[in-house]
Amino acid sequence: MINYISMDKNEIIRQEQIEVPELEDGAVLLKTLYSEVCGTDVHLLHEQLTGVPYPIIPGHVSTGIIDKIKDVVLDIDGNKLEVGDVVTFLDVHETCNSCWYCLVAKESTRCPSRKVYGITYSANDGLLGGWSQKIYLKPGVKILRLASKEMARTFIAAGCGLPTAIHAVQRANIKLGDTVVVQGSGPVGLMAAILAKASGAFDVIMIGGPDHRLEIACKFGIDKIINIFDLSKEEREKQVIAYTNNRGADVIIEATGVPNAVSEGFGMIRDGGTYVIVGQYTNAGDISINPHLDINKKHLNIRGSWGSDFSHFYLAVKFVQKYSEKYPWEEIISKEYTLNEADQALQDVKNYVIMKAVIKPN
Amino acid sequence: MINYISMDKNEIIRQEQIEVPELEDGAVLLKTLYSEVCGTDVHLLHEQLTGVPYPIIPGHVSTGIIDKIKDVVLDIDGNKLEVGDVVTFLDVHETCNSCWYCLVAKESTRCPSRKVYGITYSANDGLLGGWSQKIYLKPGVKILRLASKEMARTFIAAGCGLPTAIHAVQRANIKLGDTVVVQGSGPVGLMAAILAKASGAFDVIMIGGPDHRLEIACKFGIDKIINIFDLSKEEREKQVIAYTNNRGADVIIEATGVPNAVSEGFGMIRDGGTYVIVGQYTNAGDISINPHLDINKKHLNIRGSWGSDFSHFYLAVKFVQKYSEKYPWEEIISKEYTLNEADQALQDVKNYVIMKAVIKPN
Amino acid sequence: MINYISMDKNEIIRQEQIEVPELEDGAVLLKTLYSEVCGTDVHLLHEQLTGVPYPIIPGHVSTGIIDKIKDVVLDIDGNKLEVGDVVTFLDVHETCNSCWYCLVAKESTRCPSRKVYGITYSANDGLLGGWSQKIYLKPGVKILRLASKEMARTFIAAGCGLPTAIHAVQRANIKLGDTVVVQGSGPVGLMAAILAKASGAFDVIMIGGPDHRLEIACKFGIDKIINIFDLSKEEREKQVIAYTNNRGADVIIEATGVPNAVSEGFGMIRDGGTYVIVGQYTNAGDISINPHLDINKKHLNIRGSWGSDFSHFYLAVKFVQKYSEKYPWEEIISKEYTLNEADQALQDVKNYVIMKAVIKPN
Amino acid sequence: MINYISMDKNEIIRQEQIEVPELEDGAVLLKTLYSEVCGTDVHLLHEQLTGVPYPIIPGHVSTGIIDKIKDVVLDIDGNKLEVGDVVTFLDVHETCNSCWYCLVAKESTRCPSRKVYGITYSANDGLLGGWSQKIYLKPGVKILRLASKEMARTFIAAGCGLPTAIHAVQRANIKLGDTVVVQGSGPVGLMAAILAKASGAFDVIMIGGPDHRLEIACKFGIDKIINIFDLSKEEREKQVIAYTNNRGADVIIEATGVPNAVSEGFGMIRDGGTYVIVGQYTNAGDISINPHLDINKKHLNIRGSWGSDFSHFYLAVKFVQKYSEKYPWEEIISKEYTLNEADQALQDVKNYVIMKAVIKPN
Repeated sequence: MINYISMDKNEIIRQEQIEVPELEDGAVLLKTLYSEVCGTDVHLLHEQLTGVPYPIIPGHVSTGIIDKIKDVVLDIDGNKLEVGDVVTFLDVHETCNSCWYCLVAKESTRCPSRKVYGITYSANDGLLGGWSQKIYLKPGVKILRLASKEMARTFIAAGCGLPTAIHAVQRANIKLGDTVVVQGSGPVGLMAAILAKASGAFDVIMIGGPDHRLEIACKFGIDKIINIFDLSKEEREKQVIAYTNNRGADVIIEATGVPNAVSEGFGMIRDGGTYVIVGQYTNAGDISINPHLDINKKHLNIRGSWGSDFSHFYLAVKFVQKYSEKYPWEEIISKEYTLNEADQALQDVKNYVIMKAVIKPN
Repeated sequence: MINYISMDKNEIIRQEQIEVPELEDGAVLLKTLYSEVCGTDVHLLHEQLTGVPYPIIPGHVSTGIIDKIKDVVLDIDGNKLEVGDVVTFLDVHETCNSCWYCLVAKESTRCPSRKVYGITYSANDGLLGGWSQKIYLKPGVKILRLASKEMARTFIAAGCGLPTAIHAVQRANIKLGDTVVVQGSGPVGLMAAILAKASGAFDVIMIGGPDHRLEIACKFGIDKIINIFDLSKEEREKQVIAYTNNRGADVIIEATGVPNAVSEGFGMIRDGGTYVIVGQYTNAGDISINPHLDINKKHLNIRGSWGSDFSHFYLAVKFVQKYSEKYPWEEIISKEYTLNEADQALQDVKNYVIMKAVIKPN
Repeated sequence: MINYISMDKNEIIRQEQIEVPELEDGAVLLKTLYSEVCGTDVHLLHEQLTGVPYPIIPGHVSTGIIDKIKDVVLDIDGNKLEVGDVVTFLDVHETCNSCWYCLVAKESTRCPSRKVYGITYSANDGLLGGWSQKIYLKPGVKILRLASKEMARTFIAAGCGLPTAIHAVQRANIKLGDTVVVQGSGPVGLMAAILAKASGAFDVIMIGGPDHRLEIACKFGIDKIINIFDLSKEEREKQVIAYTNNRGADVIIEATGVPNAVSEGFGMIRDGGTYVIVGQYTNAGDISINPHLDINKKHLNIRGSWGSDFSHFYLAVKFVQKYSEKYPWEEIISKEYTLNEADQALQDVKNYVIMKAVIKPN
Repeated sequence: MINYISMDKNEIIRQEQIEVPELEDGAVLLKTLYSEVCGTDVHLLHEQLTGVPYPIIPGHVSTGIIDKIKDVVLDIDGNKLEVGDVVTFLDVHETCNSCWYCLVAKESTRCPSRKVYGITYSANDGLLGGWSQKIYLKPGVKILRLASKEMARTFIAAGCGLPTAIHAVQRANIKLGDTVVVQGSGPVGLMAAILAKASGAFDVIMIGGPDHRLEIACKFGIDKIINIFDLSKEEREKQVIAYTNNRGADVIIEATGVPNAVSEGFGMIRDGGTYVIVGQYTNAGDISINPHLDINKKHLNIRGSWGSDFSHFYLAVKFVQKYSEKYPWEEIISKEYTLNEADQALQDVKNYVIMKAVIKPN
């Protein structure tokens, strides 16, 4: 029997059991190593996303060891996957490659057929989420090999924040020498900050908190830190203006989820700058803006960044493996939780007492 | 003696006189043929712009005949300008080419030294606006030859809306096959609409009014018209959605000056689309937006477009001369006014009773 | 029985017969209306392409009427296709959407699994080319509806030159006001020229011949024509330089297939210009270039453009339907040929005696 | 009296003397700290550049201490420069900001009025080159402050290779995760390699020699080294293909000056890749290319990169000051030479026995 976590409406978290499933041709069964607990899982708990087919098995970014393969399954380079391989897989599945968004606009993150493991698949449809001892990878799920079990843990440290941030940083079009502000010091903000630096920014300023998160950012080499618990909104703006020769930042990446952070950003960005909004993943309310002062006169560029596709996932795996030594990935994972402790993991993430929680189901 | 219009605070419009000025080396004196009355002149009358050194001589886009030249003055191709040449000139002057915005960001429209004829030069500093029998072109003012006196009138028909719209359309990055919505049917909106079409859009939908303006747009070949006096906001959105295969427009160019138009645009644009805000030239108030629904989930691109530089002016002259026959430019100029009638011209523009008013000072 | 043309090695062109095939689920059988004779078919006759599984049924761009559908087949907007619909289909098939080129580089025209109807499918594998009374559309082939039988003919007039030219013009990144030279007056050159104009070029100069092709270009509104039979290479360069204010063209699109045309282009392009090479579809030999003078000092942009994908095909259909009245499409099709006359059609295309030949198999 | 080096035709290098010049308003006299000996100076010695007004004072990138200022001179941030300030200055001067290339194409490196200290100014016109005890900075020369005398030396270590490489790397449009090959291990190649890495490349492969240069590259953190003295052209290609998963490099930056290097690059680049040609600064002969195989079928992007402008110079200063500790700049400067030893410095650079020679005139 396989144990897994079922998350249902009304904040119900339950451990359940199921028989080992039969595999269809091209499917893979994974023995889970680690599955991430992400801010999105807290949103899911509180029913803040639309279109979620509760009950679900949470856990969209996961790593595991291949337990069974039905038929032949290849990775992106055409190499055959084998039982025993340590792998991760792209949670986004079923983008159709035959609709207008996939083929003409070439924006597959807006494909209407898009499904996501751990979010938009129901537990009634199978082991389609990571908080489970086994994960069923449907035919066509994109799988990438990892170098080792240690790498499987490191990749979870980066987690879904890394591909999300890769997409956001690509949207930011960072140029050599830019000064970049990252609003938010959670997993997405931290990844965006190190990627901004890796993409040519000379100075990265992170605005966030609490202290334990900012300390991790410092260990990852972020140039300047502004603690939101120490400075008021006005003081934060003043600080960024002072850091940027009185012009404001060339680029800001919002990674907070708090609508007011967007208002704050307008006061910190230079004329002609680029403002990427990636943190507003759920509807947390409206803000007031002035289209003359905030957009037109500033000659501003504002870019939303939604989701990620295979290219971001592929680069995420490559980044972690290339720079496994360069960054102190270990600092990110605050704690491992068993399936039994899933509810506690959600509470800890919700209350910001940890940077990142990881489920270890086996 | 030279007659000119002085616009002062408290909506004072006065005709005044001055002696013919001495020319410094490299300066040119122009006998004015036509000077535009622009929506900005109404803003100036009501003191809605900051940093205006009243009294001013209004009129930023003007054409004339060269009356005097001191020393040798060349056009951009290195050809010597001569007395009797029919010309126009770039109202934007004194961008410094030595500050960070000019040289590093390469955004000269944000250069702090930037001055504009008819707007940020004072009448106390000379004949530095077009509502005057003569215009004093300081050394370094960029002058372009026009083919004829008729062309001088055609160029004023296009007016300052043309370079403004060129900049906006460049920012819109229109791709072959795009469906473009233009909000606003004034001079900027009309120019943006024909330029969108000229840049590869297959369908251009104009949202505006009143009827007489939309009729002109039809004569310029705009594909579809939505009259704001006939349809409610909800009906307009529905109409655009219906025109765009239920996806929304690929590109929207806002050219209204009305903050609520920006809110309206969010409901009409497709996911991953591009929204250019060019009409919010003065502060007319705030709007409410939802950063999740309007920006992040839509994966939207929003771009402010401020002012224009020589390249836009140069293309504007080239466009009018290339397509003098293709478009019915004559339709745009509703009426010519003498200097004595300047106040009336401002009232007529303000009340939307005409498309474009032109001052003919001689 | 279904009649079709088999093209084999050693320039063998034979009419053959086959039984009506069974359809697999998701397949469509088309009754052919028109199939294009393209320059590529001449290359195929002379075995100038690599990887062609002779014998083949030529004809990559075709239109037809749906004869049979097995199961449900949808177009890109999710609408069900029906027997009797007039349609065309994307010749490019089987790009895998799972390799590095498809998913990471996002350049599906370089996908190693890519197959093309009429070129890289063998006649032994079925009715997978257009010079046949019926065409077998495998499951997943991308099908688009056309408005009428007349449109089916118009679309063939544009032919495979249109999507090829759309891709090339996108690569050229034409900006409002550009002067564009198109080298070549065949189907790709003609389409590139009208698309350059439609994308914002103010002046399009076509260099080609013979007269009958240039006359068609004139009827399509091309601004300036240079006949290669009237002027030497040096005179042609001088002419372009004279047309471009002594600077050279902003953009050149090569659509000739002749290696020396590329050398010629270097002498006609301005510093900082963009040179798109789309005509060199087969290996016709080497040329000599000077990396200092031709590339480095000119600060040049050179871009190869290979093949096309669904987005180009989709835009091609949209373009023809939007502008069916604007352009004299009828001028392009010089002559219709029956299957029996396929060999003659190939000879006529090869000898430049016609602009475009079309096979009408029924 | 001021000592300086005069370089004349026929490889004549002479030390000469001149009186201290009078300063015009806005001019600055610099006491030279260091002036670079660049590959270009060897080209100048051999008369391999066109339009050089011999005799000249070589030395285009130099640092010094302000000795005299006439009137007020400001830096780009509007701060007043003072006697005693340690500074460097942009060698490129007199780009006109009024021609078509400056204002419409916005490619000031192709401005016909462009002049360069140490290259296109004659010694007859004053102390307009760096191999001199004093340098005369004409009014309008762009001056930037350096933090210290040590920084003045570090900046010369980076030298003119740094702004040149910044421009080239911007042209290369490097994306996060790219594999970049740099051909050439001289000053431009080394700078391009570290900038490629700083711009998001995960792997940078340098192809060059001899050993002492490659050793420096290793100390600067370049990932992989291929020594041209150890491997044949075929072996080098094979090596790059092996390093890149059999696809070839995403980006190649040519920084050799050897025409055949360009041919070699075509064999190492992936389909759809970007090839920047920056090293072909003088005409060293033709090469043979195949437009079908090398450009069209590869769907390649080739970009020349000529010279640099103020933005590149500004970023160069910022880069060196930001990363003065991160890189072992000291490794680059092989040797300092007095004015008397200028001829020897040129020989040493020419014979590749050193990485970089520096003239210290005082």
